[in-house]
Amino acid sequence: MERRAERPILAIDLGGTQIRAALVTSDRTVHCRRAVPTADEEGVEAVLNRIVEVAAAVRDDAAGDGLPAPVGVGISSPGPLDPWRGIVRAAPNLLGWTNIPLGPRVAAGLGMPTFLERDTNVAIMGEWRYGAARGADNAIYITVSTGIGGGLIIDGRPIRGSNGTAGEVGHVVVELDGPRCGCGGVGHVEAIGSGTALAREGRALVAEHPDSPLARLAQDAAEVDAELVAKAAEAGDARAAALLERAWVAVGALVASLVNLLDPEVIVIGGSIAAHHPRLFDVVQVELERRAFPILLDKVRIMPAALGGDVSLIGSLPIVNDRIDDPAYAPGSVPTQQGAPLS
Amino acid sequence: MERRAERPILAIDLGGTQIRAALVTSDRTVHCRRAVPTADEEGVEAVLNRIVEVAAAVRDDAAGDGLPAPVGVGISSPGPLDPWRGIVRAAPNLLGWTNIPLGPRVAAGLGMPTFLERDTNVAIMGEWRYGAARGADNAIYITVSTGIGGGLIIDGRPIRGSNGTAGEVGHVVVELDGPRCGCGGVGHVEAIGSGTALAREGRALVAEHPDSPLARLAQDAAEVDAELVAKAAEAGDARAAALLERAWVAVGALVASLVNLLDPEVIVIGGSIAAHHPRLFDVVQVELERRAFPILLDKVRIMPAALGGDVSLIGSLPIVNDRIDDPAYAPGSVPTQQGAPLS
Repeated sequence: MERRAERPILAIDLGGTQIRAALVTSDRTVHCRRAVPTADEEGVEAVLNRIVEVAAAVRDDAAGDGLPAPVGVGISSPGPLDPWRGIVRAAPNLLGWTNIPLGPRVAAGLGMPTFLERDTNVAIMGEWRYGAARGADNAIYITVSTGIGGGLIIDGRPIRGSNGTAGEVGHVVVELDGPRCGCGGVGHVEAIGSGTALAREGRALVAEHPDSPLARLAQDAAEVDAELVAKAAEAGDARAAALLERAWVAVGALVASLVNLLDPEVIVIGGSIAAHHPRLFDVVQVELERRAFPILLDKVRIMPAALGGDVSLIGSLPIVNDRIDDPAYAPGSVPTQQGAPLS
Repeated sequence: MERRAERPILAIDLGGTQIRAALVTSDRTVHCRRAVPTADEEGVEAVLNRIVEVAAAVRDDAAGDGLPAPVGVGISSPGPLDPWRGIVRAAPNLLGWTNIPLGPRVAAGLGMPTFLERDTNVAIMGEWRYGAARGADNAIYITVSTGIGGGLIIDGRPIRGSNGTAGEVGHVVVELDGPRCGCGGVGHVEAIGSGTALAREGRALVAEHPDSPLARLAQDAAEVDAELVAKAAEAGDARAAALLERAWVAVGALVASLVNLLDPEVIVIGGSIAAHHPRLFDVVQVELERRAFPILLDKVRIMPAALGGDVSLIGSLPIVNDRIDDPAYAPGSVPTQQGAPLS
C-alpha cells in the first residue's frame, strides 16, 4: 500500500494508572516522553486538566528541542467510546468517566485537531501498519491483560461498527453458564481468561483451600493476582494450574471462534498476560486444532504483538494522519472535526 | 445507495435435497421455476450435469416466454467454497463434494459468466438489498435450520474473509466443553442450537427415557427431529422442553456475542427452525439482555427474515450484477471471470 510520509503527532495514552504523552515523528520514534499518574479519584475535571497539561508540556519540550511541530493530537483511551465525536462513553476503570467529551476538551485546550480512539483500536492500527499484522487485509488484535480487548481489520479497513464499539472480543460468550463479566454479561471470555478473572478465582481458591501452595504464597503477597496464581502453579498447586489452563483454553476458544467467523490472515495476541505466559500460545494452538475449520489451520497465523508498550503512542500516528487527510474532517475547526468516521 | 437497474439472471440454488433454478428479472420476480432432486448418491458428475440441464431448460423456457435474456448465472451452494474460482471446497451434506469446480463447469455448460456464492451469503445479499436488513451498513444474517450458518455485511460491504469462509456464525464456540459439531469442532453453537443437534439430543432422550412423551411420539414417527422434540415439549415433556430452551439460549448467546463483537445495526434470523419457532426470538431477546452491552440494547434490531425461501434465488441478482460490473472480472472469457473478489 503506497502512503505518503506520516506527519508528526502528539500522542496521548490515557490508562487506568498513568497518562502518558509524547511526540511521535514519521519514523515512529517516540520523543519527549512524559507520564503523570491518572489519579482518577481526584475527579474527571482534574484528569482532563492533567491530560491537557502533560500534552502541552510535551509540545513545549519538542519545540525547545527543535523537533517538527505536530499536526494533530491522537488519544488512546479505554472504551467504549464514540470515536466520531471524541466522547468516552463509559470507561469501567476510570471513576466517573461516563459521556466525557475528552476529544473536544483536548482540542480546545491545545488548539489542535484531536482524534480519540479506543486503546485496542490504536494497538491494532500500530500492529497492522508497522508490526505483526503488517500487510494483512484481515487481521485481529487481542489483548490479554487486566481485561480482554481487541480490534478488527477487515478487507483492509479498521472496523468500528455502528456505534464505535466493534472489536470487543472479550465480550464473546464462551460458556453459556459461565461467570458474570465485569460488564455485567454472563459467560464472556473476559470473565474466564483475563487477569481480573484469574485474580477473582485465585482469591476463591485461597478461601476454599487455606493450606494450598497458593494460599501460602498469598500470605506474603500484597494481593492475589494472575502472577501469584502462576507462581503457585509452578510450585505444584494443581488447582492453580487448572485455573490458568482454563483461562488459556477460553482464550484459545475465542481465537478459534474468530478464525471460523472472520477468516483472518493473522491474529496478533498482545497484553501483559500474553507477554508473560508463553504457554498461552501453546494452548491457543491446541484449541485451534480442536475447534477451528481444518482447512483454515495452515492459513491463519497466530503472532505475538511486535510493538510492545509504545503501541498505544505509535498507533495514533496513522490514525491522526488518516483523519486529517480525510475530506470528511475539517481539521481547522477544532471542535467539529470529530464529525465523521475516519477510514 | 444509487444503483442502476439490475439485469435479469439465471439463478441456481443447489441444496442437499433439491436443485432449483429460475430466471430472476430486475423487479425480483422469479420466472420459469424448475426443481429436480439433487440425488447426490448418483455421484458428483451426475449432479453437475443435472444442474446444467435444469438451468438450460429454464433459459429455454424463458426465451420461449419472450422474457429478457439473462446476463449471467448465479449459483447458491453450501460451503465452504471459493467464490473467486467458483470451487466448492467441502459441502458436508453433498456426497463427494470436495474441491468441485462448480462455477467453471456451469459457465462452460451454459456459455455464460457464472458466479458462485455460499448459500448464506446469497441470503444476506437478498435480505440486505431488498429485505429485513435493507439500508443497514452493518448487518448479520443467521440461518437456524439443519445447521446454523450466516453472512456478514460490514461497513456496507459483504465480507468473505481471506479464504472465502467468513460469516460461519454456526462455528462460534458457546460452550468450552460442549458437544462436538458436525464439522469436528468442540462446543460450537451449531452443535447445540441446530436442527441436527436437536435431533441428536432428542434421540438420546428417547433412548434414556423410553416412557417419556417424546419416546411415545417417536414410536409413530419416521424419525426424531426438531419438530418432534417441539411436539413433545408441547405435550408436557419437560426434558424435551429443556432441550429446546437450551438450543434457543445457545442461539441467543451467539446473537449477543455478535452484537458485542461487530456492533451491527440489524441481525436477521432466518431458516426453517427460526420460521417455525417464534419462541426463539423471545429467548434471543432475553439472552441479549443477559449478555450484550447495555448501551447497544436499544440500538440493534433483531428481525425475522423477510424474503422467504426464494431468497436463495433472488439473492443472486445483486451478486451477478455486481460482479459483471466489476472491472476485475472479464465476463466474456468464460472460465477466467472467476478470478477476483467481487465487491
